[in-house]
This record gives sequence, structure tokens and C-alpha cells, in this order.
Amino acid sequence: MRTITVAVPDEAMLHRLAPIERGTEIGGGSKNGTGTPTEIALVLWTTEDAPLDRPIDLLVLPYSVSATALPKLADSQVFVVQSQALGYDGVAEHLPAGIAYCNAVGVHEGATAELALALILSSQRGLDVAARAQPAGLWKRDWYPGLLGSSVLIVGVGGVGSAIETRLAPFDVAITRVARSARSDDHGLIHAITDLPALLPLADIVIIAVPLTGETTKMVDQTFLGKMKPRALLVNVSRGAIVDTDALTERAGAGAIRVAVDVVEPEPLPADHPLWMLPGVIITPHLGGNISSMSSRVDPLVRQQIARLRSGLSPLNIVVDRRTQP
Amino acid sequence: MRTITVAVPDEAMLHRLAPIERGTEIGGGSKNGTGTPTEIALVLWTTEDAPLDRPIDLLVLPYSVSATALPKLADSQVFVVQSQALGYDGVAEHLPAGIAYCNAVGVHEGATAELALALILSSQRGLDVAARAQPAGLWKRDWYPGLLGSSVLIVGVGGVGSAIETRLAPFDVAITRVARSARSDDHGLIHAITDLPALLPLADIVIIAVPLTGETTKMVDQTFLGKMKPRALLVNVSRGAIVDTDALTERAGAGAIRVAVDVVEPEPLPADHPLWMLPGVIITPHLGGNISSMSSRVDPLVRQQIARLRSGLSPLNIVVDRRTQP
Repeated sequence: MRTITVAVPDEAMLHRLAPIERGTEIGGGSKNGTGTPTEIALVLWTTEDAPLDRPIDLLVLPYSVSATALPKLADSQVFVVQSQALGYDGVAEHLPAGIAYCNAVGVHEGATAELALALILSSQRGLDVAARAQPAGLWKRDWYPGLLGSSVLIVGVGGVGSAIETRLAPFDVAITRVARSARSDDHGLIHAITDLPALLPLADIVIIAVPLTGETTKMVDQTFLGKMKPRALLVNVSRGAIVDTDALTERAGAGAIRVAVDVVEPEPLPADHPLWMLPGVIITPHLGGNISSMSSRVDPLVRQQIARLRSGLSPLNIVVDRRTQP
Repeated sequence: MRTITVAVPDEAMLHRLAPIERGTEIGGGSKNGTGTPTEIALVLWTTEDAPLDRPIDLLVLPYSVSATALPKLADSQVFVVQSQALGYDGVAEHLPAGIAYCNAVGVHEGATAELALALILSSQRGLDVAARAQPAGLWKRDWYPGLLGSSVLIVGVGGVGSAIETRLAPFDVAITRVARSARSDDHGLIHAITDLPALLPLADIVIIAVPLTGETTKMVDQTFLGKMKPRALLVNVSRGAIVDTDALTERAGAGAIRVAVDVVEPEPLPADHPLWMLPGVIITPHLGGNISSMSSRVDPLVRQQIARLRSGLSPLNIVVDRRTQP
């Protein structure tokens, strides 16, 4: 009997996945491709614990964990790491040899896109102002720009960018998309990132939905922000480090742009940072993936990876692979 | 030369429409159906002013005006009233004889629907909590229900209800619609209002998008609210009087439901009303139509009505008609 050891980071997930161990879900004791019977052993373990005395075939990381914790895996024998996050900035630098790292494709795109829409609509309709007026019982009618009829520039056409586009489309907006290189898909033209200087002055709303990489770090700098239309809205739901926080604070403080960000560099943003207090700025504390139904999308992904391992298949969504190449 | 007199309520609209008077827009001095040349005379006038000494062919009301101001029109000679609002509750009771009253179809549906989405997303993702934490620089990550995967019940399938449905559809939600009577359209089944007791317990979010009429006044009462799923969200973007404010305050205060309303009875809600202070309650001060682009939709409607009058056609969107029938 061959054993596949799956380490999960919390009791809740252990309980949710337990039917796999009991063999009631995907056929416990079934044969894999090589004819060897397998069993699944679920264990509770994180990099904060003492190294395990046995190899871990699949390690599920906690949802919120920094790539800087990954070097600790060198003390254990881990083959595949399944992250619960979509972004994997820093993983290539910190992942020990011998491990394949998989991101959580399909888990957070919808939740992050709906947060982007929440940020946009709050800013365009003044719901942040209303929320702060509410405890004082202040009924103050005012006029806001609205979303209807706006020009929206989406920077990034990956899972999150596409999910944002789909949700924005029925709001009667003009959507322009930008990716690294120009191309077309069935929604039309995608502009190259080199077109940004020409496109930024035309947009009422600019949405950042690119992953954090060497190229995109501080991509949104003084020059980028300086090209935006006066009082246009900058939205960031990706990673804080894509935006130069000092430049953002300066431009928002001057009233040149409005801001709605779920991510900021650094996180947490210090309580005395001036960005918190500026009018026209909305900050949410990295809530992109934080919805109660998240486990209903994480669990099927973990189950699918286990099923692939027991069938001798390579896991899905490997984004950094430091296994020895055969 | 026949003169069509058009009274508008503010200087801004007068200036925007002035090209009509100068004849540069729709052919000043052109002949109407009967061969008589017509000219358009634009005047600034509201029911607050002294009665005009000449008949008003088309009177555009201010955006925010109560039907209770309409009896004053009996002192002037007015043939057609164009409202800038969609709702016309109270008009049938207050409109003097001889006048046709037109509502502003096409002006507010998109703006009101996007406010409904703003309210829903703010509540489902905790943006109201974040907005109030922001001045203190409080980075407090929490979990919220989210919209993804929710069951949404839309009560009302008119212009606003349909515009909400269109915008909600890509959010991966299950939408159920209710109207006065059961029927089908190309989006599927519409339930009858009599199905509400069976449908309310199934919905995570209930959206009120019916007009205020005798039938819908206090439709959302203790019984209605009592049938809602625990912690479900009630959204109202129609008219405050559709909801029994006392019952709403009681259920929200007990933590049984969450609330996100743009309209409330009475308006303004008194500063010391307990609803303002309840957790899980979002109140915006009747902002449904308040977006800067509103005039870009009102003006074409007014121009279209003027063109119809000069062509001898009946105006569009008559909702209460107290003209003498020919």
C-alpha cells in the first residue's frame, strides 16, 4: 500500500477533507496508474510546526502566508505546495529545491473582481462619504460622477482582469484593455502596455489587475499617475507594490486623482500614514479574497490535486517548479 | 407663426436647451403637420413663481419636487408636464385637470441600478465598515459574505428591476424575479407576487424595485421581513414608503436581517432615528439618480417632447392624463 500524505494548515480544512482519508470520496485504496493501491493520510501541519518525520506529497499553505516563509520547507521533505492565493510574487526567490509550487487558479478571481466593482461603485457614487455621515444621522444629498458612461481602462487581462471586464460590461461603460503585448481576442483589441501613455489621459477609471513581477513593481509611479485625467479614479486590487505609495499619496493629496485600493505597500498601512485621511481615497484592508464561500472553491482544487497525485499525474497550476527535471 | 412655450426650472437647463430657441437644433420656424410655422419660446419658470401670463405648452419640473406642489399649476395654463423623475406616486391625486403628466423614462434606470449594485456590494463586502475604520487608520481584515454564489430575489421587473438584473447577471448569482403576475420573458420565468412567502426564505439578497402605489405601500412589513432568511440583505432603491420603517428597524435591530437602502420613510430620516446607528445597516440619502451625467439624458428627452409637440404628436411617457379627452 502506497500512502499519499497531504498536509493542511487548519482544523477546518482537515475536517472538510476528511472524507477523502476515509475513502468515501474518491475511492480510497483504489489503484493508481502503476497498479499500486494508495491511501490518503491527512495531517495538520504548517511551516510553524516542527519538521514532519515523513515526506509530504502535497502541502496546502495557509491562505495568508508570505513567500518569505517558504525557505523553512527545506527542513522537511515536501514535493508539491498548493497555495490558497493567486499571486505568487517572491516564490521563485524563496522556494527550496525539489518542490513544485501551485497557485490557486479559479478560487479568487470572482471575489477579487467583485471587490473591484465594490470599490469603483463606492467611489463613483459616494458610498464612503455616506458611510461616514451615517453615525451622525446626516442626510446630505450630493452629486457624484457615477459609473454610467465612464471610460474604463483595465490594465491586465488575466483571470482577475477578465472577471472585472465581464462584471463591468453591463454598466454602459467604454472598456479599454491593456496587456504586455497587443493582440485581439473575441472581445476585441487588447492594447500593448506601451500604449499606456496615450490611453491614460482618456480614462475616467484605471484598474490595476496585473500580477506583481519585477516589471510591474512601481509601474504606477509619478509619471503614470501624472498622465491620468484630472479627478480620474485609480483602482488597485492586485498587489500594493505595483503602485508607488509616495507618488499616490502626493497626487491624491493634491486632489489630482481619486483612489480606491484594496492593496497598498506596505501592509498593514501604518495608522498614521497620510493616505488614510485624504478625501477621495478609499482603502480596504486586502479583502479581495475574503468571502465566506472561499473554502467552497479551495476544497475542490485540493481534492483535484490529490486525485491527480494518486493517478500519477502532475499537479495543475504549477507556477514555480524546482523539482529535479527528469 | 405659432409659438410653443417651454418652461424649464433652472438657468443651466435654459442654457443647454437654448439652441432650440435659436432654431439651430431642430429647424426653427419649420412647419408642423398642419402647415403652420412654429417657433419655440423657452422661459424660466417653476410653481414657486407667479403664474405666467401665457399658456405653457410644456413645463419641465425641477428634479426634486413633490407631487403636492402640482395643485399650484391650476393657477396657470399648462398643457403638458415633463417630470425629471421616474416615480410618480401622488401625481394622480394632485394633478389639476387639463394636464398630461410625463415621467422621465430612460433617465434614471441605469443610475438607480448601479446604486443598487453599489449598496449590495458595499454590504456584502464590508465597505461601509472599512469606510468608517479609515479615518482611524485601522487595518482590520475580516470575512464577509460576498456576492458570488448568492441567491438574489428582485421584486419588480420594470425599467429599474431589469437594469439591476442585467448588471447582476455576470456576478455568478442565482436571480429570481417577481412581478405582479406570473409570466415568462426571454430571461425565463417571472414569479407572481403571491409566490413571495415561498421565495423570501430562499434569498440571500432581496431587492425592492417596484413603484410606490396603493398596493405596494408598506408591502415590506413585519410579515415580509419575518420570512427573510436570517442575516439576508434587504435593498430598497425605489420609494421609502414601500417599507414599514418601524418593522425594518425592529428586524435590523434584532440582527435578523441586514439592510441597504437609498430611500426611507420619512425623508430625510430624522438624525436621531435608531436605524442610522444599527450595525449591518447602510443608508444613502436618496442618491439613486444623482449622477453628474443626468442632464445628458434629461435634455434629449425634453428635446424629443418639444419636437413631438411641434409636429402635433402626443408627448411620450404620459403616466397621468387629465386632458379633456377629444
